[in-house]
Amino acid sequence: MESLRVEIEGSARHAHVTPADLQTLFGPGAVLHNKKELSQPGQYVTEERIRVEGPRGGIDRISILGPERAATQVEVSLTDARALGVTPPVRESGQLAGSAPARLVGPAGTLELPEGVIIAKRHIHVSDTDAVRYGLSDKEIVSVRVEGDRALTFGEVVIRVSPEFRTSMHIDIDEFNAAGLSGTATGLVVKP
Amino acid sequence: MESLRVEIEGSARHAHVTPADLQTLFGPGAVLHNKKELSQPGQYVTEERIRVEGPRGGIDRISILGPERAATQVEVSLTDARALGVTPPVRESGQLAGSAPARLVGPAGTLELPEGVIIAKRHIHVSDTDAVRYGLSDKEIVSVRVEGDRALTFGEVVIRVSPEFRTSMHIDIDEFNAAGLSGTATGLVVKP
Repeated sequence: MESLRVEIEGSARHAHVTPADLQTLFGPGAVLHNKKELSQPGQYVTEERIRVEGPRGGIDRISILGPERAATQVEVSLTDARALGVTPPVRESGQLAGSAPARLVGPAGTLELPEGVIIAKRHIHVSDTDAVRYGLSDKEIVSVRVEGDRALTFGEVVIRVSPEFRTSMHIDIDEFNAAGLSGTATGLVVKP
Repeated sequence: MESLRVEIEGSARHAHVTPADLQTLFGPGAVLHNKKELSQPGQYVTEERIRVEGPRGGIDRISILGPERAATQVEVSLTDARALGVTPPVRESGQLAGSAPARLVGPAGTLELPEGVIIAKRHIHVSDTDAVRYGLSDKEIVSVRVEGDRALTFGEVVIRVSPEFRTSMHIDIDEFNAAGLSGTATGLVVKP
């Protein structure tokens, strides 16, 4: 079967918020304002920014991605985690049990998050048609090979299949830099 | 032949300076003060720190490593490079032709460096005895496999053999983070 050459996007640090936490941070009646569509249909960067604080330091102007979600979470890089002074686990989005704490500061209020800070596990959003075409299954673990003067092969990449997805791989900025990537990059999916 | 399991160290941003540039930055008669030995025999972190500036921004308190060298160079991560606003090439130490410019600021003076800023190419220092034992040659390119929840395989890793070396792999902090490493880490050398 043909191997998938997948587009790779480097995800900057960002947050997702619940409707209730959005009110706490931005005031009663606050809504998210779509600033720019993301590659996944229905997902967007908003105008809303927050400060995230840990025991060692804080990071300003972290983007909130829309729409609202069932749980508030913050996705940071290991570089960011060290600046904050927290040790988040590597997790899939939404798997927050026992993840790292943080204080979220918005223009209207502050939120003490007992858990919710994670380092995103490398993943590939795969459309249902591409899943069939390339023989990929939801939750499957694959590797992705990147060429260039910082060539490397990412292991432990989780496949997520949905008819809602546009096929695209997401890694964080540390990973994007380690592979020497910039702009539009691609990698080859290889089965372990 | 047995595969080498190599210790991996994450190198923070740092600079090397010539004796003349040391005088410019720290004043006539300035010398480097050994603060801490590094893994490579004869190499050390010094007490001396400088500011490095690029078109977009500056980074304070960059360590100088000793002893002095024949050419002044600054090794940064891609994260740092973006903060500075420069686009350094991925290079082996000392290969500076056409590398990125920067302004170096010390307590006694400023130095306009027309080139000298690089992103260090992944490399393994190999002692001559380990080179024989593991069948590795100077300038050979290998891969290094790291396990864990951010498992990955670094390609384009250059072998450097010398009787002066203690066997150890050096990668930058972006790469160290991308592999989810901390403290003492190891990887397995594999031939392509």
